[in-house]
Amino acid sequence: MGLFAPDATTLHELVLTRLINVPRAKLFRCWTEPALITQWFTPPPWKTIAAEVDVRAGGSSCITMQGPDGTKVPNLGIYLEVVKNERLVFTDAYTSAWEPSDKPFMTVTVTFEEEAGKTRYTARARHWTVADREQHEQMGFHVGWGICADQLAALAATL
Amino acid sequence: MGLFAPDATTLHELVLTRLINVPRAKLFRCWTEPALITQWFTPPPWKTIAAEVDVRAGGSSCITMQGPDGTKVPNLGIYLEVVKNERLVFTDAYTSAWEPSDKPFMTVTVTFEEEAGKTRYTARARHWTVADREQHEQMGFHVGWGICADQLAALAATL
Repeated sequence: MGLFAPDATTLHELVLTRLINVPRAKLFRCWTEPALITQWFTPPPWKTIAAEVDVRAGGSSCITMQGPDGTKVPNLGIYLEVVKNERLVFTDAYTSAWEPSDKPFMTVTVTFEEEAGKTRYTARARHWTVADREQHEQMGFHVGWGICADQLAALAATL
Repeated sequence: MGLFAPDATTLHELVLTRLINVPRAKLFRCWTEPALITQWFTPPPWKTIAAEVDVRAGGSSCITMQGPDGTKVPNLGIYLEVVKNERLVFTDAYTSAWEPSDKPFMTVTVTFEEEAGKTRYTARARHWTVADREQHEQMGFHVGWGICADQLAALAATL
């Protein structure tokens, strides 16, 4: 493999990172408290209308999004790892502990690291197949997650 | 759905259960100590020639089996949940925390419950697709895991 050839991880992964001028504890709250999740989690014109989350390894989450035509889309998943204020890992491969979902699509690791008095916020989506990663990118991962990161930062700054 | 129609769980699941006359702590040791794992984990003529296990939620396992022709087959997985002497959950959907594997095939829950002075041992394999469940059954799940359960019980009784 050449020096610059993408490795398997790169081919399966999408990453978004931002340096946000808010303490990481506030960003973590926005990711884990239902009343906050609903305020930033989807790019308009979609809305997040409900969030039920059991934030612990093995706990379930159900986040319901609503499209501009009123269509409601529940997203079921499970937390694999939770380190308060530092790290969240979740996946849609299970709907509860440990029921396989219809389609294992991705595993997301979100990290909150202190950096120069700010917070390095990184969301890393790993997919089981390159095709799924490509589909996710074409669905607008970078723009969509970027808009959400802005909404997250703005909301966290008000806390 | 009729009263006796299989539900989604049944269609995705294979289960083996035994009442074993050994305390559950000894069975748990056989499942989690490399020097014991290699003694019971495969039905002959296959052998388990190596076991590296990091028995904690998020820990990796690599169990290497060897066929009668000498072929070595490493099996990579990860523990999702570990409750000492009671419960183990692991899957081949990840090769380490949290790298997706090439093929998420199954998630196994093993439970050890006290029952009438003995141990109710149950291994439950859940698959992401009905096709994978069927393939696993045709590979000889019931016979294979049954032989291994006998080997497990015999080994645990010597501890």
